[in-house]
Amino acid sequence: MEELNQQLDFIMELDRLKGIYRQTTVKSDNDRYENSAEHSWQISLAAHVLQKYAVEDVNITRVMNMLLIHDIVEIDAGDLFAFSAEQDHAAQEEKEMAAAERIFGLLPEKQCQQFKSLWVEFENAQTIDARFAKAMDRILPLLQNMRNEGGSWVRHKVKKSQVLQRNNYLQGLAPGLWLYACEQVDIAVSKGWLIDE
Amino acid sequence: MEELNQQLDFIMELDRLKGIYRQTTVKSDNDRYENSAEHSWQISLAAHVLQKYAVEDVNITRVMNMLLIHDIVEIDAGDLFAFSAEQDHAAQEEKEMAAAERIFGLLPEKQCQQFKSLWVEFENAQTIDARFAKAMDRILPLLQNMRNEGGSWVRHKVKKSQVLQRNNYLQGLAPGLWLYACEQVDIAVSKGWLIDE
Ligand SMILES: [Ca+2]
Repeated sequence: MEELNQQLDFIMELDRLKGIYRQTTVKSDNDRYENSAEHSWQISLAAHVLQKYAVEDVNITRVMNMLLIHDIVEIDAGDLFAFSAEQDHAAQEEKEMAAAERIFGLLPEKQCQQFKSLWVEFENAQTIDARFAKAMDRILPLLQNMRNEGGSWVRHKVKKSQVLQRNNYLQGLAPGLWLYACEQVDIAVSKGWLIDE
Repeated sequence: MEELNQQLDFIMELDRLKGIYRQTTVKSDNDRYENSAEHSWQISLAAHVLQKYAVEDVNITRVMNMLLIHDIVEIDAGDLFAFSAEQDHAAQEEKEMAAAERIFGLLPEKQCQQFKSLWVEFENAQTIDARFAKAMDRILPLLQNMRNEGGSWVRHKVKKSQVLQRNNYLQGLAPGLWLYACEQVDIAVSKGWLIDE
């Protein structure tokens, strides 16, 4: 029963990701802010739907599992806006590592190691699976901002070059999606939603 | 590009599940109601974490995919409380089938068929995978209500026999979890959160 109790504690701890809010908003729900739990759901399904655009053999099950757990550390560390300053990102990394230790540490040892190593793989973005997962995590806000008249780009005065750099994972991994992203960025510039720089 | 546009329309349509609210509440976020998108995320991970309790060979990837899509039809049909009247459930089924046609119909034909048949399999609850997915969908509210002093059970005057019947999938499929659920139900009765009937 000890193992089961650990697992149920972990599952109940997940509840707290529903209270971590991002910079994107949900148009269909009175433009409230989006939380990281529902984001993780949408992006896992997005990876599933878009898997055929990946050029190399991507293990979509691993990608989806990565995406389901990729933001869990935000329960302790909070969400950091993608285009924040460098030093904020460094501090965030430390907080997230401590969070991974604590939250995945709720699980029985073997599962804790599995989840932690999957999360570290995502963070390091070296494997094909991790890079495709990152690419998915980054294209979704682009799609959302395009449907929200610039959304968080406008509020935070984001530059075209920042969005292109951020979506650069797509270039090697999913050329069809990279092309699409570049077109969207040009449209965003022409509408004044991104700064042309 | 036509296919990609269909796929992106589907992914963006998913946004609307974030505005479909359930009867359960999120304690860690000021007790607001839980939406079906974040619920789908949590339950997919719950199935992953609890897979070892399944007695027969469950394909956990299929189960997780089912759980990720199982509530998408609520975008059109809305969420129906589990312990509603029989005739409400019949009307709901019809609405959900129409919703599946429309929403999965946004996808290119082949993907539409894949998603629809996975959803129908879940609904019919005949295969091992579908039954384990159903069992997961049903044990989570039990865990949540136990942490919320009875939660939706108290508000809706739910009976012990209703909860046991609803969690009955566990009995054959995951005896360890069934035992746990029975124990929790007894505790809930002793605390006055469920009616002993
Ligand atoms: Ca994030």
